[in-house]
Parts: sequence; structure tokens; C-alpha cells
Amino acid sequence: MTVIALLSVAPVIEDSMAGEVAKAVDALDDHDVRYETNPMGTVIEASDIDTLLAAVGDAHKAVDGDRVSTVLKIDHKRTSDQAATEKVDAVEAELGRPAKTDRSPGTDDESL
Amino acid sequence: MTVIALLSVAPVIEDSMAGEVAKAVDALDDHDVRYETNPMGTVIEASDIDTLLAAVGDAHKAVDGDRVSTVLKIDHKRTSDQAATEKVDAVEAELGRPAKTDRSPGTDDESL
Amino acid sequence: MTVIALLSVAPVIEDSMAGEVAKAVDALDDHDVRYETNPMGTVIEASDIDTLLAAVGDAHKAVDGDRVSTVLKIDHKRTSDQAATEKVDAVEAELGRPAKTDRSPGTDDESL
Amino acid sequence: MTVIALLSVAPVIEDSMAGEVAKAVDALDDHDVRYETNPMGTVIEASDIDTLLAAVGDAHKAVDGDRVSTVLKIDHKRTSDQAATEKVDAVEAELGRPAKTDRSPGTDDESL
Repeated sequence: MTVIALLSVAPVIEDSMAGEVAKAVDALDDHDVRYETNPMGTVIEASDIDTLLAAVGDAHKAVDGDRVSTVLKIDHKRTSDQAATEKVDAVEAELGRPAKTDRSPGTDDESL
Repeated sequence: MTVIALLSVAPVIEDSMAGEVAKAVDALDDHDVRYETNPMGTVIEASDIDTLLAAVGDAHKAVDGDRVSTVLKIDHKRTSDQAATEKVDAVEAELGRPAKTDRSPGTDDESL
Repeated sequence: MTVIALLSVAPVIEDSMAGEVAKAVDALDDHDVRYETNPMGTVIEASDIDTLLAAVGDAHKAVDGDRVSTVLKIDHKRTSDQAATEKVDAVEAELGRPAKTDRSPGTDDESL
Repeated sequence: MTVIALLSVAPVIEDSMAGEVAKAVDALDDHDVRYETNPMGTVIEASDIDTLLAAVGDAHKAVDGDRVSTVLKIDHKRTSDQAATEKVDAVEAELGRPAKTDRSPGTDDESL
């Protein structure tokens, strides 16, 4: 069984959120989860839903702020042990290439 | 101005979704966006909201299926040109380390 | 075909967001969609994905702010014309009761 | 303090999900939360984050299926006791009208 999720915890503040987001990421270290942060959140992998939600709760509570916005998307496969990275591998096998581009949106080089 | 988003397009099917997800990712190539797929979706960068939503529409339409579930989270900074990767850099600068772990959740090595 | 979605558009500001959220809701009126706002967003119904995304784009652009956070979840049934309200009716038919409670969380009356 | 959230729990199955969604809604009754289901999920109100996440965990576990997709969006106001319905009231006060329309998208009457 694999529980894979994307977690985004953000204080509703007008300054940079990086310091508070770092506290949320740090809080994950106390839990039996694998995680990797990307520009829109942190992909978390756990072996069961309770472990995932305990980590989510601590990450949410680690962020200071009068108002905190948390978004969580869970993909829970109960009959498969597919690791998170294997989900991307499967898409790239279908694509026949890496699932990414390095184009710089809105710059001259898009016309090349 | 930077529009950064996470897009997940999935057909509601009981088989593997990888083939359909690959079509959605492929459809992004026709648009002036930068993108990178992770286990929970694809981070997309565009220079304006209309370009982003045009790419999202084509990715959604590229997926075949009687029922399609699409989730989109947009972080639109109108007064900053911060690239998507710089968001992760800022968090890692606060953490003082990479925002990831390689622990294998639910295995013996967690006791090390 | 029915495209049903939940849209949340919010400026990242520390004051009340109600005024800006109202502008986003108002912007939906220029589009051929049905909508109803709830405490966590606005449920929108459209007959096709392009109509939905055009409405989403205008709602997002209607909100002023240096940073705007938009979340969109789409449930697109391509072979059914089920109206949004019928989704709740189907759940309530299974429940055998309304899918709601009026309990006041965290107050004395929970012990009754 | 008010924790308001939108929860969507869905089995990834090609048949109707209503029966399983009803189980998720039913599971909320064992928790000190107020909730109301709408076409895109269930708005849940709790007095603290732990109570909310305990309810979310039970709702997720109540749904049978090899693969379960759960989306949770939390709006946590730590210095306010605003009830969920007051969020909609505030938007409608700004709008000067109910935040809804009864238009039937994609039908003739849109020309009226």
C-alpha cells in the first residue's frame, strides 16, 4: 500500500512565506515519511493514511500566522506498492521523453 | 509577473492512468509554458494567466475518458518575476538543507 | 455533458478577502454558467470546459492584489448530463438523510 | 479559532461513487464537527485542527476501493471565531445579492 500526497501549507501573509514553509517541511522530519518539495508544495510518501495525516497535522501546526491555508491532495493506492517516483517513470515511459521542458515562458527564445 | 501552478488531470478509470496523463503533459508542449511533472501533478510556469489557462484547457481535453478529474492550484505573483525553482531555493535557504529526504517509509531502515 | 467545478480565488492579503471574493463571484455573471458560493469556494456548472475556463479566467483577473491564489477542482462527466444538485441528491439517497449537521463544534451542546 | 475546510473523498471507480461518498459523510458524524455536502465536496467546521484531521482520516478510511483520491482545503483562522456561513454572508454583503444564480448553462433560456 502506498499513500502519496501533495501538501501545501502557507500562512496568509503579504511578506515572503519561505521561512514559515520551511518550518512546515522541517516538521515532516519527525515522521516516517519520504518527501520532496517542489514549487507548488511537497510530495509526501507514507505507508499508511494515519502516518500521513499525523505528518500533515504537525506541518500545519508548525506554521505561525493568524490565518493558515493548507491544501492536501492524496492518491492512496491500497493494492499497490508503487513508489512516488515510479508514477513519473510510468508517464515518461508513455511520453518517450522526460516530462519536463526548460523553455523560458514569455521570453524571446520561445520564437526559436 | 509569474504565474506558477500545479495541474493534475486524471481520467477516472480503474486501470493505469499513465497513458492518458502522458497525453495531458504532451499537450502542454504547444504552449509557451515551462513545466515539470512530479508524482502528484505537473508544475507549470507561464508569463500570464490566459496562457496558463489555455494550456490547462488543452491538457484537460487531451485526456480521453467518460469522466475526467482536474485539479489546478495557481500561485500568481503580479509584482514579482520569481521563477518556480526560486520558490524552492528560498525554502531551502531557510532550511539550510535540501527540502527532501530519501527515507523509505514503512521499512526497517527507519529504525537506523 | 456536465462540467462541475469548485473555484476558490483569494488575494493573499491579511485583511478581509470578502470584497475581492465578491468581485470574482460577480465576474461569473458574464458567463453562461450556474454557480453557488459556499464557505470554501463557488460551485460552478457549465456545459463545456472552454466556457468554464473562460469564467475562471475572468474571476481570477477580477481579484486585485499583488499575489492571488486560485484553486480549481473540475469533475467533468462527458457522457452524463447530471446537474450539480443531483450529485448531492444521490449521496443523500444513499445516506437516507440530508448530508449535513447543525451541531456547533467545540460547544457544550456536543455533550447532549 | 475556526477551522473550516472542504473535503472530497472519492474512490477511483467507473461506476457511481454516491454510495462510497455517503460512507465518508456518515463517518463525520462520529466527530465534533459541523458539515454540509455540496456538489464538489463537504464543507466541514471544527474548533481545532486535530479534530478536523481525525474526522478526515475516518472519512477517508470509510471509503472502500483499491484507489482513493482525497482532496482537502483548509482555511484556519486562529484569531477569529467566524462561522463558515458568515464567510458567505460577508461576500453577499459586498455583492449586495445572493452569491448564486439559477441560470441553466447551455440551454435556450440563456438568451433571456
